[in-house]
Amino acid sequence: MQTLRTVEVDLGERSYNIFVGEGILSTAGDLLKRAGIKRKVAVVTNPTVAQLYLDTLNDALQGSGFEVTPVLLPDGEEYKTLSTLSTIFDRLISEKFERQSCVVALGGGVVGDIAGFAAACYLRGTPFVQVPTTLLAQVDSSVGGKTGVNHPRGKNLIGAFYQPRAVIIDVALLLSLPRRELVAGLAEVIKYGIIEDPGLFGRLENELNGVLALDRRLLTEVITTSCAIKARVIENDEREDDHRAVLNFGHTVGHALEAATRYQRFLHGEAVAIGMAKAAAISYQQGFCDAITLSRIIKLIKMAGLATEIPKEVPPQSLIDGMELDKKSADGKIKFVMCTAIGKTCFHSLTAEQIAAALGT
Amino acid sequence: MQTLRTVEVDLGERSYNIFVGEGILSTAGDLLKRAGIKRKVAVVTNPTVAQLYLDTLNDALQGSGFEVTPVLLPDGEEYKTLSTLSTIFDRLISEKFERQSCVVALGGGVVGDIAGFAAACYLRGTPFVQVPTTLLAQVDSSVGGKTGVNHPRGKNLIGAFYQPRAVIIDVALLLSLPRRELVAGLAEVIKYGIIEDPGLFGRLENELNGVLALDRRLLTEVITTSCAIKARVIENDEREDDHRAVLNFGHTVGHALEAATRYQRFLHGEAVAIGMAKAAAISYQQGFCDAITLSRIIKLIKMAGLATEIPKEVPPQSLIDGMELDKKSADGKIKFVMCTAIGKTCFHSLTAEQIAAALGT
Repeated sequence: MQTLRTVEVDLGERSYNIFVGEGILSTAGDLLKRAGIKRKVAVVTNPTVAQLYLDTLNDALQGSGFEVTPVLLPDGEEYKTLSTLSTIFDRLISEKFERQSCVVALGGGVVGDIAGFAAACYLRGTPFVQVPTTLLAQVDSSVGGKTGVNHPRGKNLIGAFYQPRAVIIDVALLLSLPRRELVAGLAEVIKYGIIEDPGLFGRLENELNGVLALDRRLLTEVITTSCAIKARVIENDEREDDHRAVLNFGHTVGHALEAATRYQRFLHGEAVAIGMAKAAAISYQQGFCDAITLSRIIKLIKMAGLATEIPKEVPPQSLIDGMELDKKSADGKIKFVMCTAIGKTCFHSLTAEQIAAALGT
Repeated sequence: MQTLRTVEVDLGERSYNIFVGEGILSTAGDLLKRAGIKRKVAVVTNPTVAQLYLDTLNDALQGSGFEVTPVLLPDGEEYKTLSTLSTIFDRLISEKFERQSCVVALGGGVVGDIAGFAAACYLRGTPFVQVPTTLLAQVDSSVGGKTGVNHPRGKNLIGAFYQPRAVIIDVALLLSLPRRELVAGLAEVIKYGIIEDPGLFGRLENELNGVLALDRRLLTEVITTSCAIKARVIENDEREDDHRAVLNFGHTVGHALEAATRYQRFLHGEAVAIGMAKAAAISYQQGFCDAITLSRIIKLIKMAGLATEIPKEVPPQSLIDGMELDKKSADGKIKFVMCTAIGKTCFHSLTAEQIAAALGT
């Protein structure tokens, strides 16, 4: 028997539901109907994910009367470009997709970001549904409406805030996820504990092994809690004018580290884990949090099997360059997220040089 | 002495002002400040417009303390592509544009659409200001937030609804506009009369020669009225879910005609003029309006020096193909705008074949 948890994201006329459950992929047709989606659906995915789940989704959608067009993208972050976006438009136009037609993203963050941006731009906006297949996408990138593609000089520099009509999270899909990706996704779950929820943080301290062992009940609860936290943050600040930037905890250094290693060495969550450890260390150094908070954060990140140190061979200047291009900067300064206690944060304005100097100490 | 007329567009947090006046380009710095724009500004334009007005705008902006980066695009609709968009992103990134930086479009509809879409996508949205230099752009494309680029298979198929922070309309810029473009722009002015304002329509019947002779007072009034009509329509339906489609009067056939002639033969306004004449004829044929309404519309379009007939060598099938790709279609039917009297319209659902058949009678 499938249990279905629902998180409502209240954004006025752009409100939507996040559905979380085990095995709910096979009920996707009903869930799309509940979200008001009509006849034509393009399922954007990649060959790896398609082989595992496209048939199930296809059957679920066709069983509910939807006409399905699969759109396969090459697999990998290096294809998250304007040029790949263009190939999606070509398909939608060939298949005579109209303004009421729907784009469904079946995959991880790359597929979700690019399919969402395609939906945002095609005919200036068509309905869009996220079916995330990685832990990172389930707890982070599929929720909140950030879509986009990369530029050779920076990640996600081109995109749109565009909310999905629904997010369908089937935790059973995580069974096929490589362990490295599962662990990387945990970095974002830990982040929610650090920035907003001492209860979640404490639970992870006690039950992280159950999560790593893919206990489905536990996964459903942890993912639902994570999505609910992100939903509340977004409801307060959809377009990241202010408080939403709290979600960037660990990401200033994390993004710079990914850029400095040309996105080859770290998965996003792995870089964010190091970024969080460093953000916590800077928070402690500058008197924002106490030593116990810092050590609990470092310990939990390590428990998950994630690194907490910047590799010695990464030159500080390359991190500075990466931070300056980060789109969260304003007037040349970076809105750095400090941790003041487990579940509490504040913003502090720093230059990239100040951050790099703090990392070196 | 410059007179400044202001039309407010009330869209909640996306509200903005349209400034209309003679010679106000030289006050653009003050107007940008009033709109809350900060330090860095990219002026997107083309070589033709740059030669005429870039120095004036540059001086006005620098005089108010803005740091200006000119971004020149090749001149012409054929460059309204994802690829040109990409070159704008390259420049914004090279110049380290941030989320608070501003994109100013100085030019006609092509420049405005592509610069606006670039602003919509860069860092998921940066401030944007329109400085339209053609009549068509001043009364139509610069107002309302439609931005985008073309796809080889159709115009404006890729884009965003993205509102500017301000629109600065200097009617003196029309003095340098080729007469053919001025006349084409009048088609949209006539449209506002037909769909919403018998007073404007009557005034054009009486004073069209003054407009054609570039009487600045008259131009200011006619343009301000046109912008105010468009603003009211958009306030009711920003994303064209319903009533905004009234602005497409004459555009179903107009767009199809442009597509069928590969955008080589007609300026947009010229095709719309024929489309309006045909929409009025269909409205009359199908009993939506009386013969006097039809003849007043045809007469005013002709008075402006615009054509009212589809050239014989354009095959009906090519028009059908163009209409089917038009993004206003829903469930295979087209929401055709009928005129019921001067200043009044209604929607009527038709297939492309039905419209083509009506054109043939």
